[in-house]
Amino acid sequence: MSATVTDICRRARAASTVIRELTTEVKDQVLREMADAIDTAAEDLKEANARDVAAAREAGTSATLVDRLTLTDKRIAGMTGAIRTIIDLPDPVGQVVGGRTRPNGLRIEHVREPLGVVAVIYEARPNVTADVAALCLKSGNAAVLRGSSIAQHTNAAIADVLAEVLRARDDVPDDAVQLIRDTSREAAMELLHADGYVDLLVPRGGPSLINTVKDNATVPTVIDGDGNCHVYVDASADPARATDIVVNGKTSRPSVCNAVETLLVHRDLAGDWLPKALDTLQGLGVSIRGDERTREVWPAAKEAQDSDWETEYLDLILAVKVVDGLDEAVRHIDRYGTRNAEAIVAQDYDVARRFALAVDSGSVFVNTSTRYSDGGEFGYGVEIGVSTQKLHARGPMGLESLTCVKNVVWGSGQIRVI
Amino acid sequence: MSATVTDICRRARAASTVIRELTTEVKDQVLREMADAIDTAAEDLKEANARDVAAAREAGTSATLVDRLTLTDKRIAGMTGAIRTIIDLPDPVGQVVGGRTRPNGLRIEHVREPLGVVAVIYEARPNVTADVAALCLKSGNAAVLRGSSIAQHTNAAIADVLAEVLRARDDVPDDAVQLIRDTSREAAMELLHADGYVDLLVPRGGPSLINTVKDNATVPTVIDGDGNCHVYVDASADPARATDIVVNGKTSRPSVCNAVETLLVHRDLAGDWLPKALDTLQGLGVSIRGDERTREVWPAAKEAQDSDWETEYLDLILAVKVVDGLDEAVRHIDRYGTRNAEAIVAQDYDVARRFALAVDSGSVFVNTSTRYSDGGEFGYGVEIGVSTQKLHARGPMGLESLTCVKNVVWGSGQIRVI
Repeated sequence: MSATVTDICRRARAASTVIRELTTEVKDQVLREMADAIDTAAEDLKEANARDVAAAREAGTSATLVDRLTLTDKRIAGMTGAIRTIIDLPDPVGQVVGGRTRPNGLRIEHVREPLGVVAVIYEARPNVTADVAALCLKSGNAAVLRGSSIAQHTNAAIADVLAEVLRARDDVPDDAVQLIRDTSREAAMELLHADGYVDLLVPRGGPSLINTVKDNATVPTVIDGDGNCHVYVDASADPARATDIVVNGKTSRPSVCNAVETLLVHRDLAGDWLPKALDTLQGLGVSIRGDERTREVWPAAKEAQDSDWETEYLDLILAVKVVDGLDEAVRHIDRYGTRNAEAIVAQDYDVARRFALAVDSGSVFVNTSTRYSDGGEFGYGVEIGVSTQKLHARGPMGLESLTCVKNVVWGSGQIRVI
Repeated sequence: MSATVTDICRRARAASTVIRELTTEVKDQVLREMADAIDTAAEDLKEANARDVAAAREAGTSATLVDRLTLTDKRIAGMTGAIRTIIDLPDPVGQVVGGRTRPNGLRIEHVREPLGVVAVIYEARPNVTADVAALCLKSGNAAVLRGSSIAQHTNAAIADVLAEVLRARDDVPDDAVQLIRDTSREAAMELLHADGYVDLLVPRGGPSLINTVKDNATVPTVIDGDGNCHVYVDASADPARATDIVVNGKTSRPSVCNAVETLLVHRDLAGDWLPKALDTLQGLGVSIRGDERTREVWPAAKEAQDSDWETEYLDLILAVKVVDGLDEAVRHIDRYGTRNAEAIVAQDYDVARRFALAVDSGSVFVNTSTRYSDGGEFGYGVEIGVSTQKLHARGPMGLESLTCVKNVVWGSGQIRVI
């Protein structure tokens, strides 16, 4: 078994040298064929999925996870829809993102190029297999996919459909998209150490997967980490807007990484806006953990502990702190934030502008909801994930995050004297 | 001792929240004062340096290293000249590098921002202390510097001069530039593990330093790795140009990472151009390691071993291989190259264009020398290093490589329905 993963990665590397030179026309045509083939194979995919679902039920898997795993006609349509969205996106490969002509006549171009081999480790959702394959192909990369054992028959069935499309074409390598069918921990570890073959590994999943990758990977990674997101409501905020943005951030989908976890409120709003906003949130089922000044104006709040400022609840719970102003809000976010997404509600021009500049996070939202921290909402089509690191990519990651920028220097015989 | 490095990094992180918001005007003024202060302190710096040089001589350090360590008036002028060059460079912070307005009216901007805390570990050259301090400050980052013990008095003296400038100003934190004065291995290890404080660590030095960082660092790094650089001379090459570019790449400064190590020659040139070029190279003191086809036309070549294709000689030695054409050249580079810098000499338009596209390297040079793989030659002023990785930055790294791109989203009350 152990040789297989490295072998897959080696074949991916060989394929990548061909894929990087494919034209957008060819790549889009292959993607069209893949979407069509998935549509055609819908019944087979549901059959394979039924085996995974039955096994998961038998193993006592939670209803949430079983739901996430289940392939319906609607989800298959979502999968092919995502591929067709990716077809419509501009090809990042070959984009000239900068450059100059030097005094000696050398013309330097900074050009987007594929990374080479992109590996993705992911959990239950079977749509990731098709999404990632399509994103990698569009960006000129070979894809190595490693789903979880719970979805193994589904993932294999989808990978088989994609492989069939690739085999039918002479111009695209069969190894452009490969699934690691060995779902053991050893196989995953081998992938994390496939140095020299894998140019980027992206983990898509919960904290346990992320931490395993963080602690073990020796291949380059981009981490989609925690989302301890903040909203700061300034004294100058439009009150209705502030309520909308906090309610949307906390309640529209509490389990996702761009949901709000901490509300910071200017002290001038503590007497009036804050209690009304907390009443509204409570009415929507949100539990409040407040600091002392919050509890003075809204005694129903549970007392916030230090740990609350660090917690990504992913639930209908909100930590609330009254601050003296912008500076304290910025310092709080700098200390406790996870650099994912933060918002300000403010009508004061200088305050809004300074928050946008001073807060060090993947995305900063001014007078709008952190829930927009999302590849689709950013216009990237399907997202690879949301980076919480600073190098290479920040915030929602689209096709560009699967590329690097190479220097091409066009000369006319120049040589360097020293 | 052990607490000191973490404490320095913690202070750097605190300082970074102020430095990120400094205007270009203020940063440039501080840099001007630093350059002036170094000029004024020249005699003190040379005195401190004399202690390091004496200790190095006593310890039997090689003449090359002692030379590298020695501070002369010319080198001090070079140091202040570099700072003044950095003053003249555009400030990368705040550059809007992309963006769009979404159908719902959200305006998304991709904005360059400082990374936060940049640490650099470096070896003998004392100019690095001033260079890196200036690059970090200009790009809005706090700098943590860790030079080697051989230059400890010199580095401390330079750091003292810079600290004096910072202390005299109220608007820039004293901790903007800090030198780790503990030159023990333990202190270096502590820096490599300063997670949460250091946003980027760049090692500047030889393979042993690079490998220590690669193997141990848990903080984010950009690696300036080996330079096994290639020149491919195509059948269509202008012969004189080809000779110039190969000779320049091999002989102008053999010990640097952008020097050429392997020459790949189209078989059509094996009978005529190649032997003449090798005669020229031999006349300049270059030893040739040739493959079989090379030795057929130039029997004086030593037989190349497989290991020769992987070796960065950093010396007057050149590996030479005759290839059937572009494809074989590209495959050879893909297999043995270190993705630093590669060149082609070709008059054929399609061949030149395809090499530029197909070769996966930090920089690809068409009809010019790999010796131009250099921050100064790229117009970046002083370079941080030359990246041989793909993520974040490729090839020569300038000020931009010390920044990241944040998303700022300007709204007018938008909330997300799902």
